[in-house]
Amino acid sequence: MKRVVIVGGGFAGLRAARALGDVSEIEVTLVDQRNHHLFQPLLYQVAMAGLSPAEIAAPIRSLLSRYQNIHVRQEQVDRVDLTHRRIVTGSGEIDYDTLLLACGSRHAYFGHDDWEEHAPGLKTLEQATEIRRRVLSAFEEAEREADPERRRALLTFVVIGGGPTGVELAGALGEMSRFTLARDFRNIDPKLTRVILVEAGPRILPSFRESQASRATRDLESLGVQVWTASPVTRIDAACIEVGRERIETFTALWAAGVEPSALNRTLGVSLDAQGRVLVEADLSLPGHPEVFVAGDQAHFSPDSSSSPLPGHAPVAMQQGRFFARTVRRDLRGEPRERFRYVDRGQMATIGRRRAVCEIGRFHFGGWFAWITWLVVHIYYLVGFKNRLFVVLQWTWSYLRYGRGARLIIAKEWRFYSSRLAP
Amino acid sequence: MKRVVIVGGGFAGLRAARALGDVSEIEVTLVDQRNHHLFQPLLYQVAMAGLSPAEIAAPIRSLLSRYQNIHVRQEQVDRVDLTHRRIVTGSGEIDYDTLLLACGSRHAYFGHDDWEEHAPGLKTLEQATEIRRRVLSAFEEAEREADPERRRALLTFVVIGGGPTGVELAGALGEMSRFTLARDFRNIDPKLTRVILVEAGPRILPSFRESQASRATRDLESLGVQVWTASPVTRIDAACIEVGRERIETFTALWAAGVEPSALNRTLGVSLDAQGRVLVEADLSLPGHPEVFVAGDQAHFSPDSSSSPLPGHAPVAMQQGRFFARTVRRDLRGEPRERFRYVDRGQMATIGRRRAVCEIGRFHFGGWFAWITWLVVHIYYLVGFKNRLFVVLQWTWSYLRYGRGARLIIAKEWRFYSSRLAP
Repeated sequence: MKRVVIVGGGFAGLRAARALGDVSEIEVTLVDQRNHHLFQPLLYQVAMAGLSPAEIAAPIRSLLSRYQNIHVRQEQVDRVDLTHRRIVTGSGEIDYDTLLLACGSRHAYFGHDDWEEHAPGLKTLEQATEIRRRVLSAFEEAEREADPERRRALLTFVVIGGGPTGVELAGALGEMSRFTLARDFRNIDPKLTRVILVEAGPRILPSFRESQASRATRDLESLGVQVWTASPVTRIDAACIEVGRERIETFTALWAAGVEPSALNRTLGVSLDAQGRVLVEADLSLPGHPEVFVAGDQAHFSPDSSSSPLPGHAPVAMQQGRFFARTVRRDLRGEPRERFRYVDRGQMATIGRRRAVCEIGRFHFGGWFAWITWLVVHIYYLVGFKNRLFVVLQWTWSYLRYGRGARLIIAKEWRFYSSRLAP
Repeated sequence: MKRVVIVGGGFAGLRAARALGDVSEIEVTLVDQRNHHLFQPLLYQVAMAGLSPAEIAAPIRSLLSRYQNIHVRQEQVDRVDLTHRRIVTGSGEIDYDTLLLACGSRHAYFGHDDWEEHAPGLKTLEQATEIRRRVLSAFEEAEREADPERRRALLTFVVIGGGPTGVELAGALGEMSRFTLARDFRNIDPKLTRVILVEAGPRILPSFRESQASRATRDLESLGVQVWTASPVTRIDAACIEVGRERIETFTALWAAGVEPSALNRTLGVSLDAQGRVLVEADLSLPGHPEVFVAGDQAHFSPDSSSSPLPGHAPVAMQQGRFFARTVRRDLRGEPRERFRYVDRGQMATIGRRRAVCEIGRFHFGGWFAWITWLVVHIYYLVGFKNRLFVVLQWTWSYLRYGRGARLIIAKEWRFYSSRLAP
């Protein structure tokens, strides 16, 4: 029995585990600190009250329950003992013959960790619910605020970072304030909400063609989003954001400006790139450790020495997860290792509920057709893990109805409402 | 313009506001510290991972947005100034000509407030999510626990209180462990889970007939729930519960044993009953203050001096809310006040996913037919506030699929996972 340990139940880990399910010579243990797999490409929808957490997440345990050779453990991994081939968790040690590290990434504040409190990132369901709480509470507070200055600040939302996540957050914010909330308030006009997308670089969506970025900018502006490029943020506190000498009064800032890989990387004692990702071999293994693999956001993989590393996208992680499983099976049969080859199927970003930009190979397009493409691709992959027609129908409906979505303000502390004075 | 202020957006407050919507001579302000109306009869389903919060809650603001004469404010009410006819909130004062207090109730620990930490009650979405987190985490921890004693304690769940909520929680716990989770674990057998329903009184469901309570007990036992009656709890801490001299080792206790009305009552300076509810007149008004009304769980109303007060059920609150609106309109027309009359349409409690007990007038029945009745009644009332066929279909599906429900463990602290070591 070959013991395969997979750390992380994201796109890479889940695909790897599934591809090793029911292989009789292999026993798989998947370890994750969370109990659920999260469909991150739609996480911004939870933050913007369009979807409920359970609609884009499912217990890893039940996703893998039909494979008798897979064990799932909800646990935190403290470190990897490469010499003795075991991982050390909070409750003990787990030995491995082959290891896959696929722990993903988290937000990076480039040395300004104190910014996190005022500008949360969007990587987990907790963060999404917290962002939802902040955004909806800002409108509620504005409704009862008498001071026009403060009301204006309450109705100003700043999204920092012009990559796909930032663009999707800003577009959803623009749309929510203009359409969903428009009729619900009496003292404020949600249409006057200011949404500002701040990007340090010369343009948004840097990984897309310039024409697509311009198109996305126009689409954002039609939803009332102001796009500020070449605007590095220099300060964030509870009531304002500074961009160089300019100052934006706001109580709600969202961070989508950068990620760093799992802190586990620094405990491995191997060479990392500037962002902290592990520099892996052509077969995704750790240099000098052919039995240890790194995949997804945690790895730095360049197709060849001259090209830039693969981006931290779900398709990269899924293909690397499946490649890992294939490699384990080839090893079992004594076949030589292959090189990982990424099949680039393109990239897309959605702007609000009607528009998107897509780049698929030589094709690039935007508008309504791109949005339909975006929808079909996301439904297809959501089916991949939820695997039930009705869930998809339900989800499509939830997505389309938007205005009646999950607009709940849920407190951070569960005892909050029971321990305070009425009502 | 007559200024009507309603405090609380529960069953009483929401029905009252709706019945005053679009009445041109009246301006309504509804104040609630939450932004959402909650369909509490199904809250236990959120705690037991069968439904998502958004499926049983909706923003008060959007439920009332079509009535131009209704303002909604999310705010905490600190006290009522009866003399000057105004309520005092965190951000100021609101004057009223007529006031409805309908703030509901919260859990009461009968002088043992320190028990709340170890045995949370079930009144809010936050509490439901917290209970879900504790229950699911106990199974996860048991899966990786090597010590059999501790594993047994982790798989022991105690529900305190044998009223409808306690019965529903215990039944859902029994069913979840026996059916939903059965295939998902490798090291533990969820079927060995112990669920104990502890009741201080001589039997469960004291408001039901004895024969119905026996039937419910048998139904619970068929789901593996042990029913302990005449068992007052004497101690609760993090690792055990004491019932007299007996001691149950458990890490998960849930409180469904008693409620007390809003703390606002004690600030009114009027006579309260032993439980702290306001003793109201025949028209639900405050003695000496015909312009102030109290409804729902917050009020003590007896149909006549000899009978016991109406229970804290949703139908009572809804009828009282509508009665209040009718009274306001009669006042406007100068008609004399009427006495509130409660139309008792019966009571019901569900046990797991196939059985229930119902009492409707002279009829009482149980089993599958009672469960269908329960389902139809709850769907009917859920439509009452969500008002969309598709939501009902979606909800019915979510309810029936159960096993694929909202089994997410979401941390209490949003930054928890971003600020700790990997993965």
